[in-house]
Amino acid sequence: MGRSVHVQSDNTTDMEISSPQQAAADSPQSPYGVGFPPRRKLASQFAHRVKETFFSDDPLRPYKGQPRSRKLFLGLQHLFPIFDWGRSYSLDKFKGDLIAGLTIASLCIPQDIAYAKLAHLDPQYALYTSLVAPLVYSVMGSSRDIAIGPVAVVSLLLGTLLSDEVDPVKNKEEYLRLAFTATFFAGVVQAALGFFRLGFIIDFLSHAAIVGFMAGAAVTISLQQLKGFLGIMDFTTKTDIISVMKSVWRAVQHGWNWQTILIASAFLAYMMVSKYISKKKKKLFWVSAIAPLISVILATFFVYITRADKKGVQIVRKIEKGINPSSAGKIYFSGPNAAKGIKIGVVAGMVALTEAIAIGRTFAAMKDYQLDGNKEMLALGSMNVIGSLTSCYVATGSFSRSAVNFMAGCNTAISNIVMSLVVLLTLLVITPLFKYTPNAVLASIIISAVIGLIDFQEAHRIWKVDKLDFLACLGAFFGVVFISVEIGLLIAVLISFAKILLQVTRPRTVRLGNLPGTTIYRNVEQYPDTIQAPEFLIVRVDSAIYFTNSNYARERIMRWLRDEEDYVKENNLPKINFLIVELSPVTDVDTSGIHAFEELHAALRKHEIQLLLANPGAVVIQKLRSSGFIDLIGQDKIFLTVGDAVQANCAPKEGEA
Amino acid sequence: MGRSVHVQSDNTTDMEISSPQQAAADSPQSPYGVGFPPRRKLASQFAHRVKETFFSDDPLRPYKGQPRSRKLFLGLQHLFPIFDWGRSYSLDKFKGDLIAGLTIASLCIPQDIAYAKLAHLDPQYALYTSLVAPLVYSVMGSSRDIAIGPVAVVSLLLGTLLSDEVDPVKNKEEYLRLAFTATFFAGVVQAALGFFRLGFIIDFLSHAAIVGFMAGAAVTISLQQLKGFLGIMDFTTKTDIISVMKSVWRAVQHGWNWQTILIASAFLAYMMVSKYISKKKKKLFWVSAIAPLISVILATFFVYITRADKKGVQIVRKIEKGINPSSAGKIYFSGPNAAKGIKIGVVAGMVALTEAIAIGRTFAAMKDYQLDGNKEMLALGSMNVIGSLTSCYVATGSFSRSAVNFMAGCNTAISNIVMSLVVLLTLLVITPLFKYTPNAVLASIIISAVIGLIDFQEAHRIWKVDKLDFLACLGAFFGVVFISVEIGLLIAVLISFAKILLQVTRPRTVRLGNLPGTTIYRNVEQYPDTIQAPEFLIVRVDSAIYFTNSNYARERIMRWLRDEEDYVKENNLPKINFLIVELSPVTDVDTSGIHAFEELHAALRKHEIQLLLANPGAVVIQKLRSSGFIDLIGQDKIFLTVGDAVQANCAPKEGEA
Repeated sequence: MGRSVHVQSDNTTDMEISSPQQAAADSPQSPYGVGFPPRRKLASQFAHRVKETFFSDDPLRPYKGQPRSRKLFLGLQHLFPIFDWGRSYSLDKFKGDLIAGLTIASLCIPQDIAYAKLAHLDPQYALYTSLVAPLVYSVMGSSRDIAIGPVAVVSLLLGTLLSDEVDPVKNKEEYLRLAFTATFFAGVVQAALGFFRLGFIIDFLSHAAIVGFMAGAAVTISLQQLKGFLGIMDFTTKTDIISVMKSVWRAVQHGWNWQTILIASAFLAYMMVSKYISKKKKKLFWVSAIAPLISVILATFFVYITRADKKGVQIVRKIEKGINPSSAGKIYFSGPNAAKGIKIGVVAGMVALTEAIAIGRTFAAMKDYQLDGNKEMLALGSMNVIGSLTSCYVATGSFSRSAVNFMAGCNTAISNIVMSLVVLLTLLVITPLFKYTPNAVLASIIISAVIGLIDFQEAHRIWKVDKLDFLACLGAFFGVVFISVEIGLLIAVLISFAKILLQVTRPRTVRLGNLPGTTIYRNVEQYPDTIQAPEFLIVRVDSAIYFTNSNYARERIMRWLRDEEDYVKENNLPKINFLIVELSPVTDVDTSGIHAFEELHAALRKHEIQLLLANPGAVVIQKLRSSGFIDLIGQDKIFLTVGDAVQANCAPKEGEA
Repeated sequence: MGRSVHVQSDNTTDMEISSPQQAAADSPQSPYGVGFPPRRKLASQFAHRVKETFFSDDPLRPYKGQPRSRKLFLGLQHLFPIFDWGRSYSLDKFKGDLIAGLTIASLCIPQDIAYAKLAHLDPQYALYTSLVAPLVYSVMGSSRDIAIGPVAVVSLLLGTLLSDEVDPVKNKEEYLRLAFTATFFAGVVQAALGFFRLGFIIDFLSHAAIVGFMAGAAVTISLQQLKGFLGIMDFTTKTDIISVMKSVWRAVQHGWNWQTILIASAFLAYMMVSKYISKKKKKLFWVSAIAPLISVILATFFVYITRADKKGVQIVRKIEKGINPSSAGKIYFSGPNAAKGIKIGVVAGMVALTEAIAIGRTFAAMKDYQLDGNKEMLALGSMNVIGSLTSCYVATGSFSRSAVNFMAGCNTAISNIVMSLVVLLTLLVITPLFKYTPNAVLASIIISAVIGLIDFQEAHRIWKVDKLDFLACLGAFFGVVFISVEIGLLIAVLISFAKILLQVTRPRTVRLGNLPGTTIYRNVEQYPDTIQAPEFLIVRVDSAIYFTNSNYARERIMRWLRDEEDYVKENNLPKINFLIVELSPVTDVDTSGIHAFEELHAALRKHEIQLLLANPGAVVIQKLRSSGFIDLIGQDKIFLTVGDAVQANCAPKEGEA
């Protein structure tokens, strides 16, 4: 694998340029045969496979050739990245972090109080979550831009899953304990995925499915807000659009509360306008960032002055003062509730992880730093485990707050610490002031926050690029909106999988032709200029040949041959004598694939057609060799390129003619 | 797509040969750009996809351009192939079929009586099955060599699944009704798969998994025969090796029945020797084919003479005389038993289908005729539905009898009709003679039949070719032997799927180098002769880039780059300026894949490296275009070959220097 000077670009020396020329003139075939890679021992093959599967990011790279004490320090840094970036932290960076931290705090406090309702929990639990989780993350996490806390989608998902098991009003204490249990196991699952380097599992939720799921969740969450927005007392506990619309319609007859609607609409309008302003002028990002806080302050003040709560405007009423109590004793570690907690925790934990990793990756790409997915999972998992012991529920990265954090100029996770301290002050001092905050303004805050999760542009782009992806996107969306959050998620995963299976079951096969004047052979549909060599049929299979598609591939090749033989007969062209299978895209075969080759070879022999193979890759040639297929067809039937295969089998015939 | 005369092989005319030469000398880049395939309308794309997925075999081909009456006739022929081959049937062909039919009849009658025991059914039900099923198949099926009837593996599977639900001794009638119900739904599922052209579903059971499953089933079935072989009265109903061995050990203390063991061992030895003879001399296939019948006759006669049944040798005792009674009224169409029947029917039906299709394909390939999988499924399904109404249980193609049928010189499905008629005679006349047949000889027959399902050679070949396939094979084997038939099947399916998912999650990425003197770029590990072009890093991703692997692919490419940059720095070589991604094996991208490309492009820009793409396929280039990625990087960054990409970006630099 040594490097040497490149020859192709250097046209001056005779020797180097003569060879391709001569190759083209004298013997048009290239002077190379197909390479047989050196056989590797089973153990080294296995080690290589394991490394690529679980350690593809080569995490031990910085440790190579370091003394032991340094290795220990690097390991500590790896687990707690704060030791890494903390050493070069400066006052200059702190300025940015302070402003960003204060901004996201002003956004997070009203959002928290609102999101807790989605999870059917008292508002203080969301504030507790915003106090502890960011502190843990800032020590262990490696994203510099993510803003940690409760988020709308996970709150809704948790609320739905938990209330399927326990009634949040009748069995309040049991519900709370189950919430902590689910949070604990969500954290354990997240940390375990990271620790066992199984982070790639979250990749199974495709981008398109996430877009659909998020939009569906946004619609569902907004619909849920109609309760607070319209001041409806008796509201369904279901989340599907039909149940919600029935509830809303039933409430019409009892009369909606006009004062509530007035408050809600006014502040929603204010927040939407401020969002629009921030979008138009990036510098004015703070206008939309502080809008929720201003809305809460104004609305609370307004209700307090007018005593609108006596006229049917529902208010927060009570919010616990003081910092997080311990909840370690409240987690179920055994019994049926532990099983329920594990089930809910796994689902909520995976969704939370998907959201956090997507955010982390987006901002890491924008600022060009590496983000180790497995390490992030360990950090997020530890955060939720610690959170579950201190009265927090599942926290993750928030899309809206992370964007604000980024635009406010955050430099490190210190902005999360600043936010956490502001939340601490809030919990210690000013929570009683939220007593008169109307639920209506909280509904407006949620609606204005989640509306950004509906990404029409991206949906349109998915439609343009890949119709099956769009189907996954739509499936997830309608599943969430019309059935439930879990079913939507399930549909998204199933369609994504079905797409993979379709691809491995029905790979494309194409026919190749020669680009005149070159030795290049390409897909005849993509390159209409191509011409066919007489006596040859050249096909390419566009996939690894596995048990899922080996029969299809073989039968499809035979169908190409039948079609071509019919065509040849009709037009009195020379009979097909050679079938070349171009194997460049065939990255692997298994035993079923080799069977298919054997059957193809046998069938072709009956037709008196020779089977030639072009450009088998390293793995394919090894397997063809160890299965004895190469001995069966003869090593002279395997060529470096399609051009070589054509020329080697053309030349003698031309000479005879 | 018109054909024209091939140029490459014709070196005589000036014009044609000059172009590649000149191309190499003057401008080494080939004169072609990347082809953009014509945009197809959504409807036509969709129709094409559906056609390739469900109608890949182009079943309507013979109907094209035929008059209506001819179409009707062809349709009838399609459904009942007997109208096709029946018209050219001759006395000459009948001779072969008669001999083959008599031979497989002599094999099938003793096997049937034995296999019924595996399904916990009375022996006549297996004979009923061998009467009706072959008749239906011979009219509808298109394999000429398959021998239809009850088989060991399906009998065992059905027996295990049914006795999990109903006790075959205590609730004999309910058990029987459930067996017919399962058979009915097995047939419905099989026919439905064929009708809806979903036959490819059985391909999801990989070859390796089937080899392991069959071997495991053979061991399990043989172990079950220890009951009859050793004359044990009190035997476990479980099938795992540990339970069976405990049963056998417990029975030792009560004493095994030496007369039984003597009979069993003697006839097993006889049959194994005859098998060996047939294997050595293919012409003597009949020696092993009639061995079971001779064994039954001799053993029955021996027991009758010596009245060994009074000395503890167990005998068949009772076997119903007369032909199939109707069982239409016995099938459960509703209630919990119908649900159980459906569940069992689906599993047994799929396994039966897998076996029959594998046999059909094997012999079709040997005699070179086409076998339409979907049509076969329709035939097998109809056969089982009709069977379930006439007191039959699940029938399928038998490995051992089909091989005998083939070697005895069968020509058409008439041999199945001959066999069926012999079974009819047996049922009408000689069943009472089987009264004294010892169970021991039946055990010997089963053992000698299933031992052939253990294919060490194939297992060894799988080990040589593909280690992961071997794991699936082993998993299926041990699952069946140590746990149960269903679990073994489940393990086999899961490992097969896991293998696919691993491949789509962690595709190989390789580095390419130039074969000196050519414009060909190949994997540096496979072709150690390759050299590197300075300033270039060329990598290839060996898979479609989907959501499951897009992050991995991007990160892995960046890791190749980091490694290369380190290498370049250490050796004072010129800085990497171009990263070429060879897309030949990248058969598809989805929206996640395009995101990965965008992120890669952004990351490379920070490193001041240009991203070049080589040889994108039709689908990939379309998606890159519709997503706007081509406009992002510029169309001049996309090349027909890696060689073109290198030369286009090398030449001007050389000129400047």
